[in-house]
Amino acid sequence: MKNRKIILNEEEIPTHWYNIVADMANKPLPPLHPGTREPIGPEALAPLFPMELIKQEVSAEKWIEIPEQVRDTYKIWRPTPMYRATALEAALDTPAKIYYKYEGVSPAGSHKPNTAVAQAYYNKQEGVKRITTETGAGQWGSALSFACNIFDIECEVYMVKISYHQKPYRKTLMNTWGAEVFASPTNRTEAGKKILAEDPDSPGSLGIAISEAIERAASDEHTKYALGSVLNHVLMHQTVIGQEAVKQMDKAGDLPDIVIAPFGGGSNFAGISFPFLRMNLEEGKNIRCIASEPSSCPKLTRGVFRYDFGDTVGMTPLLPMYTLGHNFVPAPIHAGGLRYHGAGVVVSQLLKDNLIEAVAHDQLECFEAGILFTKTEGIVPAPETTHAIATAIREANRCKEEGKAETILIHLCGHGYFDLKAYDDYLSGKLHKHEVTKEAIEASLAKLDTPIIE
Amino acid sequence: MKNRKIILNEEEIPTHWYNIVADMANKPLPPLHPGTREPIGPEALAPLFPMELIKQEVSAEKWIEIPEQVRDTYKIWRPTPMYRATALEAALDTPAKIYYKYEGVSPAGSHKPNTAVAQAYYNKQEGVKRITTETGAGQWGSALSFACNIFDIECEVYMVKISYHQKPYRKTLMNTWGAEVFASPTNRTEAGKKILAEDPDSPGSLGIAISEAIERAASDEHTKYALGSVLNHVLMHQTVIGQEAVKQMDKAGDLPDIVIAPFGGGSNFAGISFPFLRMNLEEGKNIRCIASEPSSCPKLTRGVFRYDFGDTVGMTPLLPMYTLGHNFVPAPIHAGGLRYHGAGVVVSQLLKDNLIEAVAHDQLECFEAGILFTKTEGIVPAPETTHAIATAIREANRCKEEGKAETILIHLCGHGYFDLKAYDDYLSGKLHKHEVTKEAIEASLAKLDTPIIE
Repeated sequence: MKNRKIILNEEEIPTHWYNIVADMANKPLPPLHPGTREPIGPEALAPLFPMELIKQEVSAEKWIEIPEQVRDTYKIWRPTPMYRATALEAALDTPAKIYYKYEGVSPAGSHKPNTAVAQAYYNKQEGVKRITTETGAGQWGSALSFACNIFDIECEVYMVKISYHQKPYRKTLMNTWGAEVFASPTNRTEAGKKILAEDPDSPGSLGIAISEAIERAASDEHTKYALGSVLNHVLMHQTVIGQEAVKQMDKAGDLPDIVIAPFGGGSNFAGISFPFLRMNLEEGKNIRCIASEPSSCPKLTRGVFRYDFGDTVGMTPLLPMYTLGHNFVPAPIHAGGLRYHGAGVVVSQLLKDNLIEAVAHDQLECFEAGILFTKTEGIVPAPETTHAIATAIREANRCKEEGKAETILIHLCGHGYFDLKAYDDYLSGKLHKHEVTKEAIEASLAKLDTPIIE
Repeated sequence: MKNRKIILNEEEIPTHWYNIVADMANKPLPPLHPGTREPIGPEALAPLFPMELIKQEVSAEKWIEIPEQVRDTYKIWRPTPMYRATALEAALDTPAKIYYKYEGVSPAGSHKPNTAVAQAYYNKQEGVKRITTETGAGQWGSALSFACNIFDIECEVYMVKISYHQKPYRKTLMNTWGAEVFASPTNRTEAGKKILAEDPDSPGSLGIAISEAIERAASDEHTKYALGSVLNHVLMHQTVIGQEAVKQMDKAGDLPDIVIAPFGGGSNFAGISFPFLRMNLEEGKNIRCIASEPSSCPKLTRGVFRYDFGDTVGMTPLLPMYTLGHNFVPAPIHAGGLRYHGAGVVVSQLLKDNLIEAVAHDQLECFEAGILFTKTEGIVPAPETTHAIATAIREANRCKEEGKAETILIHLCGHGYFDLKAYDDYLSGKLHKHEVTKEAIEASLAKLDTPIIE
């Protein structure tokens, strides 16, 4: 009787975060000031982030030590288990070996606390009293609420109003950890007041919520802001996932041919894949790292590599990224965490340099994959997570056709216990395909007047 | 930096279930036929359960081997972690050492799959095509849906209609594993039709749902019935929890002075405590095992030890148990899993013999304990689970007063991700105390005409 899980001891929690920038031949291009369009330095970020995180954001160091208190907090859920998906393999009748690394065991139910805890720690070190953030579906807001509670920091979450009302339990989860959650737009900020004056019934958007959270942080010296993806320090914190996975694959006496993760802003994908990409860059290995995005928001597979804003209203620095244009409005798919117009800078550069791959899936294919996973492996994956499973199934089917016993590693980044409405909609036939037309992408990109990258 | 978790390898999953009856000086009294009131033998259970489970129900063997396929399925979530609750200890400023064993890592989110998987396995062995059951809050229905899916058995869940509508996500979770879920009362059974004829808008009850599930099983030779607590084979299957906990406490170099678990029908409490009670019975240890029940349904602390029916309509055999009377209707507290009028036979005998203890808590004290646990340890406990935490806090406070460094082990039997409505009600001040009057208990017991135990 074989083992299903490959587990590690707490002593095996990584001691350092891995900064892939140190190993990249082509370094990411600098961010530009939104007004002057000149390169900006780290000091421009000081009103929003504590200095230690800004240092990490621009660091060229390969390894950054994880503070003891952060590692101690990681022990609440880390090391996370890796599973061999024997039941899924059997259902697919594939010669491929499929493994998955499961981050849903964290109290917030996803990989997000890996960076939330680190960010809360550094804010606490620098005397910050309050952290603001935005949340859409609620995963990131939950993770930050959990982390701020541990380090005794006030947490203010601006939750997109329509989600606030559609997902009341995510709000309660944040409240349970002591966070204040506001349905954005609110009357607490100028940005929110302006929107409400124009449309008192505004359902809100991630762009508006970001504006509110940033305004609150920028206007109070004891308040900072936290972001759950896209930025390099966030991606770096997530590399504890991949470092554990490298050890676990080694314990299993195996090495993945393919590593697959869902793709929203990039932190999920970076977390599992960067430590394997390091083996490609350093040791000449040839591990394929595939980012799985929704076909309704296909920035990696159908976007352009260009400077663009990180938010939808054009307040942030201009970043060199794969983008569909910051005005692009993706269809309201249930995988809310993947509805972002752009991709993190580091991941974008890696894709530009052909060091990683990307594929897109329609939500119907994803939920079909999610149901198959639930019925074979028992765990209900988050809608975001089903994208990686869909890619893995495609690859496993290819292996079957080609008669190849390749090894596939899936990043099972979160559970779907808060997303059962989405499964209910799928099972009752209420979901549809969301193909984006060529014209819609062209129209969104045509509005961009941001710098082009040669 | 100390470890937070004490983890075991898959090889350390127990190989046998422990049957405490073998070690009891006073064996449980026999069940009686509901009509003749004469003792009945195992054959009376044959229409409802597979023979192997009936054998276990009446077994005098001390150890029953766990089939390899069941152990292999346990590996999806077992061994479960044990934690040292250092943050909770610090918040309480107690000299007591507090540990908890966490069963919420199972796919269904509680300890229930430990027996659901075993029951589904034996049903499959005996060619059963379909299993019926009832569910209130949904924990048991979820666990059986998960287990039936693994062994490719159809699963029919009769869910109390009011819960069906209040907790749609529990229903979807069961659907996701392929189970059929019906809002009980239904038109699928004579019992359901009868109720609907009298009251088309009946909100249902656990008693009605049991009647429907049993009727379906009794009327089809390929269909059996499964119960999630109370019966001895169910309690026995749960002893994997306590056996792991014994090993984990040993690894931690510690031994509990007190083991605490919530109490509904007894399987949760039995699961963690019986392997420690064995150390009392066999080795003369003196470990206090405390059952925590809601003060709104206080069968252990305020009920009588007497023969009573297992259901509310009087269809089941008469069982010797602590009971409030099978007509007792507990207040609609959120800890739905603890709203049961009676206690399992084996646990009742142990309490009668003063081998275990029982305490009761009001739901306000429980939710306060649940919030403190969430804010210190990070995990949101199920409302049922908060009862054990409330008892642990009382004991830890006593230790503080007495200056004693006792060791307390809590059974953290499930997470509360599906119960956030309850937390929301608590946080917004909507919950109230539910004291049961002496008169209400006396009135319920006065209706009993079942045999008295001398």
